[in-house]
Amino acid sequence: MTGVIDPVVLAQALIAADSVTPASGVVFDVLEAALIESGFAVDRFTVGEAPDGPVENLLATRGDEPRHLAFAGHVDVVPPGEGWTASPWSAEVRDGLLYGRGAVDMKGAVAAFVAAASRSDAGTLSLIVTGDEEGPATYGTVALMERMAARGIVPDLCLVGEPTSTTQLGDMVKIGRRGSVNIWIDVPGRQGHVAYPHLADNPIPRLVAILAEIERVVLDEGTDWFQPSNIEVTDIAVGNPAHNVIPAKASARLSIRFNDRHRGADLIDRIRVIAQAHAPAAVVTGRVSGEAFLTEPGAFSTLLSESIHGATGLRPELSTTGGTSDARFLSKLCPVVEFGLINATMHKVDEAVAVDDVRRLTDIYADVIARALR
Amino acid sequence: MTGVIDPVVLAQALIAADSVTPASGVVFDVLEAALIESGFAVDRFTVGEAPDGPVENLLATRGDEPRHLAFAGHVDVVPPGEGWTASPWSAEVRDGLLYGRGAVDMKGAVAAFVAAASRSDAGTLSLIVTGDEEGPATYGTVALMERMAARGIVPDLCLVGEPTSTTQLGDMVKIGRRGSVNIWIDVPGRQGHVAYPHLADNPIPRLVAILAEIERVVLDEGTDWFQPSNIEVTDIAVGNPAHNVIPAKASARLSIRFNDRHRGADLIDRIRVIAQAHAPAAVVTGRVSGEAFLTEPGAFSTLLSESIHGATGLRPELSTTGGTSDARFLSKLCPVVEFGLINATMHKVDEAVAVDDVRRLTDIYADVIARALR
Repeated sequence: MTGVIDPVVLAQALIAADSVTPASGVVFDVLEAALIESGFAVDRFTVGEAPDGPVENLLATRGDEPRHLAFAGHVDVVPPGEGWTASPWSAEVRDGLLYGRGAVDMKGAVAAFVAAASRSDAGTLSLIVTGDEEGPATYGTVALMERMAARGIVPDLCLVGEPTSTTQLGDMVKIGRRGSVNIWIDVPGRQGHVAYPHLADNPIPRLVAILAEIERVVLDEGTDWFQPSNIEVTDIAVGNPAHNVIPAKASARLSIRFNDRHRGADLIDRIRVIAQAHAPAAVVTGRVSGEAFLTEPGAFSTLLSESIHGATGLRPELSTTGGTSDARFLSKLCPVVEFGLINATMHKVDEAVAVDDVRRLTDIYADVIARALR
Repeated sequence: MTGVIDPVVLAQALIAADSVTPASGVVFDVLEAALIESGFAVDRFTVGEAPDGPVENLLATRGDEPRHLAFAGHVDVVPPGEGWTASPWSAEVRDGLLYGRGAVDMKGAVAAFVAAASRSDAGTLSLIVTGDEEGPATYGTVALMERMAARGIVPDLCLVGEPTSTTQLGDMVKIGRRGSVNIWIDVPGRQGHVAYPHLADNPIPRLVAILAEIERVVLDEGTDWFQPSNIEVTDIAVGNPAHNVIPAKASARLSIRFNDRHRGADLIDRIRVIAQAHAPAAVVTGRVSGEAFLTEPGAFSTLLSESIHGATGLRPELSTTGGTSDARFLSKLCPVVEFGLINATMHKVDEAVAVDDVRRLTDIYADVIARALR
């Protein structure tokens, strides 16, 4: 260990490196230098081919103690968009706020974790950092996990630094995420003239019957940790401009957000059974964006809550709300919880983080490291 | 009465006058000359403004006896399209068939009626001939009826010369037509992210409930003369390309073909009540293309059947099938039946009529005139 890193200075250096997804090059150079300064061995590698690759990733490790904590994150950012007060890469501090694309999502948290790690050399630490979390993510965290498996790196716990706080730093920790699946229902029919319906076969009544039955489905009533799973019909398309024509096909698209009572493939099968009961020729296809996961509240979430309470006085809500994150992959490895900065400005113009929050997050992460590796 | 007209020669002259809808000029000149030759007083007039006008119409009258028969038809034709063996305006006879756009729909029948009228001078006859039946028809038969009302012309019976025969001349007479109405249902909602459905308001479940209830509606079981009224959902549109977005609106379009148990405006109201029961903010709009009408089988249809039987040996089916025709307007004036040539080639390439059918139709029309004005 050669020196204690200032998290705000590191956050500014990371923000100054334009890294619209997929990230590569300079932003990783900045991160690598800080990690080497903190005693980490750094493994940078690029994988994948177009269209979802290539993607640069970084796996850093330090120590060989039995207790092993991993921190996961990303250094790519969403495009800045128009209308910023200053350049999204200027990383300037105004009135106690550090501005820049990625300030909260999630270069601020990456900097905080590296700075926290620079304060001690206890136990074993890994950093799992991808250049593609905001994009297709095909060659991001998944590729890092393959790299870890190949190298025999198996953490006991994983902390994901996504911005989970809502109005105050420390008010929310994510202990799970709902799963997500999109499903397409295509009902074929036979076109014809509305004056002669017996010569045609209108697919719309069958699609309506399918959707009416789907509306009556109650997937579950929620669990201790998850809200009820939810089905939304997000589109119906027939595409028939002719007033006097019975259409040849009708289709619908569903989005299901589901808790850990379900698996995506089972939900696709269940929708298929409903569809084909009303329309035997219906074609049902699905794409699972992510399965649900839950890290049951226990030692890890308690440890994190204690660290947060010590630094902020808050007892974080343990939540499973919101969209998906790379934690859905990492949950296959070991218990995963997510905690980071306030997400109010993420993906927005003038994304900004309070300088004090970066410093307090560093304190929290340092306390988590100390407790986890004790 | 100055001379007996040959219906085939007149049909050829009418076909030779290109009269893609809306018709004007030469085709009316040809018709007017034949009518004047047969002793008619001819009233040609042009009405209406863009986009549905101007339209040329012709009202011809002869005689002042109390018994008054009207014949209604049109001299406009649909565009010929590509692929004709000879010019669609050549009016040539090959192997006993007279070819040309309008041969069966319905210059052949107009020629047959004028020729039939030229054979006698009994009673009172009117010819109601428009230049726009195939187009918007805003200033066609409706304008002719206004002209008749202004001039105090009120027929006792009206024969519409549309091609009603299906495989043999005389196999079908139309004694009514179903009505037609298109109805649009627009259900508003509030857009949002599928992960946070409580912050959005998906209009699709309400539209599905509306359509499911509409599918259960039985308008009637049919009548002695009409098949059951029928509702078809012809389109559903949401137009939401984003998989993770709850849409802001959803809409559907219905086409209802209805018998004389219903009126178009009542059906629109009925759909509105169903829609607003499920979605109070739903907007329901409708457009009535035509009301149903029925000329109860009786003296007029019996008279026509006898004339057909005398010329062909067939007893025509009295039908109310098919689309709408201008008879829907004329039915407000007096009892209306429709009878004309074989409709197999109407609106198609190489439209053609058997020369023998034109002559037999002339015989039938002449017999109808004789019986009706006896």
